[in-house]
Amino acid sequence: MKHLKVIAFDADDTLWHSEHMFHDVQQRLSEILDHYAPHDQVQTRLHETEVNNIKLFGYGVKGFTLSMIETAIEISRGRISAPDIHDIVMLGKGMLDAPLDLIDGCAQVLEELKADYRLFLITKGDVLDQRNKIEKSGLEALFERTEVVQEKDPEVYRALFKEHDIDPRSLAMVGNSMRSDILPILELDGTGIYIPYHVTAHFEIIEEDISHPRFHQLGDISELPEFLAEQRSAGAEGR
Amino acid sequence: MKHLKVIAFDADDTLWHSEHMFHDVQQRLSEILDHYAPHDQVQTRLHETEVNNIKLFGYGVKGFTLSMIETAIEISRGRISAPDIHDIVMLGKGMLDAPLDLIDGCAQVLEELKADYRLFLITKGDVLDQRNKIEKSGLEALFERTEVVQEKDPEVYRALFKEHDIDPRSLAMVGNSMRSDILPILELDGTGIYIPYHVTAHFEIIEEDISHPRFHQLGDISELPEFLAEQRSAGAEGR
Repeated sequence: MKHLKVIAFDADDTLWHSEHMFHDVQQRLSEILDHYAPHDQVQTRLHETEVNNIKLFGYGVKGFTLSMIETAIEISRGRISAPDIHDIVMLGKGMLDAPLDLIDGCAQVLEELKADYRLFLITKGDVLDQRNKIEKSGLEALFERTEVVQEKDPEVYRALFKEHDIDPRSLAMVGNSMRSDILPILELDGTGIYIPYHVTAHFEIIEEDISHPRFHQLGDISELPEFLAEQRSAGAEGR
Repeated sequence: MKHLKVIAFDADDTLWHSEHMFHDVQQRLSEILDHYAPHDQVQTRLHETEVNNIKLFGYGVKGFTLSMIETAIEISRGRISAPDIHDIVMLGKGMLDAPLDLIDGCAQVLEELKADYRLFLITKGDVLDQRNKIEKSGLEALFERTEVVQEKDPEVYRALFKEHDIDPRSLAMVGNSMRSDILPILELDGTGIYIPYHVTAHFEIIEEDISHPRFHQLGDISELPEFLAEQRSAGAEGR
């Protein structure tokens, strides 16, 4: 492995909690639609609607809220009341306005790594949502650069690395999504450090075991400095 | 005036038609709410809702659609039907999916100016919406860079100009919004070329006459090359 010089971090569910909020709101939607359909049917239909709308709406709370409204109208066969739809709009606004809840220990980890590595934040989603979250996080100054992208695929990463003069072989990406944070980085000869979160968005789930020389999995972000130090000394020993 | 080297263009209603679509959709919303309130009251309430939501939603079609839904529920005092709300969601999706309608002559103007100037596109709004429109426009290759920003104020412009090594005194910004395209540029010692569009978004309207040595108004984008050529020869004569 080439000496690591750059550590890039995903943000949602890697540096701060996010998916649990979508999860809670979906639960609330199921409750609102209790009269019309069982909860699992609401979830399934919502996921289908979200997937169908991603090309038009992209990722983010506003599109998610519109998908919830569409789903509610459909599941209720047009019988849901306007006050119930108002509650759904308010669920969306509540998500946008929610305080940011950092993952335990992440600020200290970033502070510690900043001395030895170039740090980047690379997050996907609605730019306004994400910029608001980055600002609320208070972490921005710890990064050389924070980037909000529309999709995390090899092309997008390649362009970013080129722009910032980063050799992917010297980069590790840390994130909770195999599909978005790990697989495209491995494809570009970078290192993927997977830290699963207890809830994963349905469109990020990948059903496969991975075995790859530059793939690593940690239980918690606070394990990262020690892991990187070990990699470094292993590299110095010529392994 | 310093010799102009950079021409930056607004996009919505400067390079392609946009506001008329919002205008038509607002008209449709008034028709849907015909039973509940007069059209002008619907428009007023929608504008208030949009302004109240801009901090959470930003600019763009998804936020606009959510604001229409909120307005419809409020104006109807919770009596609007789910199928009517479904129609509003579909109005929003129709806007996102609409073909792009370029302003007459803009492609030729850009082709012509590209030989003599660095060209930038600077547009405000939802990044996914705007990136989709830039792609649909087929104009991207004519620009050195296309930038989507969340707000067009002096700080945002100053950061952009710094990033691209642009002296604002050598730049003219072409756009249809006094508030977003012209006044902040004049403040930074740039040149503002105002080309009004026949409809202006309510939050872009500024009620003042402007008289400023670096402010110019044209009737149509096709007048731009001749105008710039005149400025150039006037400059060469030492004026």
